Amino acid sequence: MSQLFAEGDLLASGRAARLKARTDPAPTSGVAEGLVQANMISVPKDWAWDVLLYAQRNPKPVPVLDVIEGGGYESALAPGSDLRTDIPQYRVWRDGELDSEPVDATEAWAEHPDLVTFLIGCSFTFEAGLHQAQIEIRHQTAGRNVPMYRTGVDCRPAGRLKGKLVVSMRPIACDRIADAVRISGGYPSVHGAPVHIGDPDALGIRDFYAPEYGDAPVPLRDGEVPVFWACGVTPQAAIAASKVPFAITHAPGAMFVTDVLNETYAV
Amino acid sequence: MSQLFAEGDLLASGRAARLKARTDPAPTSGVAEGLVQANMISVPKDWAWDVLLYAQRNPKPVPVLDVIEGGGYESALAPGSDLRTDIPQYRVWRDGELDSEPVDATEAWAEHPDLVTFLIGCSFTFEAGLHQAQIEIRHQTAGRNVPMYRTGVDCRPAGRLKGKLVVSMRPIACDRIADAVRISGGYPSVHGAPVHIGDPDALGIRDFYAPEYGDAPVPLRDGEVPVFWACGVTPQAAIAASKVPFAITHAPGAMFVTDVLNETYAV
Repeated sequence: MSQLFAEGDLLASGRAARLKARTDPAPTSGVAEGLVQANMISVPKDWAWDVLLYAQRNPKPVPVLDVIEGGGYESALAPGSDLRTDIPQYRVWRDGELDSEPVDATEAWAEHPDLVTFLIGCSFTFEAGLHQAQIEIRHQTAGRNVPMYRTGVDCRPAGRLKGKLVVSMRPIACDRIADAVRISGGYPSVHGAPVHIGDPDALGIRDFYAPEYGDAPVPLRDGEVPVFWACGVTPQAAIAASKVPFAITHAPGAMFVTDVLNETYAV
Repeated sequence: MSQLFAEGDLLASGRAARLKARTDPAPTSGVAEGLVQANMISVPKDWAWDVLLYAQRNPKPVPVLDVIEGGGYESALAPGSDLRTDIPQYRVWRDGELDSEPVDATEAWAEHPDLVTFLIGCSFTFEAGLHQAQIEIRHQTAGRNVPMYRTGVDCRPAGRLKGKLVVSMRPIACDRIADAVRISGGYPSVHGAPVHIGDPDALGIRDFYAPEYGDAPVPLRDGEVPVFWACGVTPQAAIAASKVPFAITHAPGAMFVTDVLNETYAV
């Protein structure tokens, strides 16, 4: 598929979301539906090879959509954007520790003139497809952030980077699981089909009702099964596990809204 | 999809193909059908970032399946393989010029101890799917190498790398084009659906019957249309256009046969 940019009202909704993100830290699930949202990780150039190789070796959790070099902060996926401000909330990491969570990353960005910034696909892209197929997105209807877990599954290491797989979870009714697999599988470059269906313990999830990222899930209903998708927060687990000296990321669930149509990444 | 390795006779056919490749420069279309084949480009570490970023920015022609660092020559996609010998024919490039086409690259490999080697998806993976759907693969039935063209379409540059898109061509009967699109589109990480259907001139192809790589096509039959897929020879066009100081690649059409099932890359 060629890269398809939104027009008209949809394009305006993406721009409005980025403008709102400059002052409002709210998560972006369901925002500007139809437009691709992205995870972000920005590292000094010395670490860029490790990140890009980590992505290549772990394409399901870390599908790279754009790379901006040399301290740049405008993504080709959203002309006129400013990656230092247009994400609702950031995380600044030092030596693998979370240092701060600013709404504006301009100051942190200025610390390293050679930042290389990666935008990574997000499962919110196929949520639109699930929604259109009348599959309920529970965290949206509950007004919460999506629950995300650090699993016990090792990613393939790359250079100095290692870490566990992070997954997002959506409860799905048994009779819609096949549809959810098929629909999300149609977006292979934004996490694609689930990595696991049914058993949090088998993934090494510590506590189903206390996710490491995002909000706790509301209780599952009868006939629902937890479905787990690879998640673009995975690089943040690698930053922590690998004690990366400096990185700026988005805050989990608070994504960068692009101008690109979800259909760009549909098979 | 999880990475699926072949077993039994199919695994043996892959190993036999790699063993044969140590002395026989023949192209590999149709060889060990069912197993993923790969393009190769190997560059000194100083150029590795440029290549990986070029791949990320041009995922249709340059889908990376494996990266081997530090002069290594065993791919995780084929345990026990030797990338210096297990490809039927190589190309050694110096300052962007084709220097030699050895059957064994061991000597060239030894020139740089820090080679980083990239294996890149190949359209031969979905040829098996076309074949199973009874779509004729003309270059196979004609006993030729697939025709490949350097188009007039610019790839997105990355660092010091720039170059034109290279495409492979298969003539397809008008009533099977939709099937060919659907089937190849099911393998998005090995070039996926065609980039163009019908008009060589629109792609900036110089002479349809004199391709830049591979063998000339046999004349099209009535009711057939030329269908063009992005091709993993694209990095070789970039080596030439960008005057890369040193690189080793496969010779177009003479691929690395892995132990991995085509289904690994099916959506």
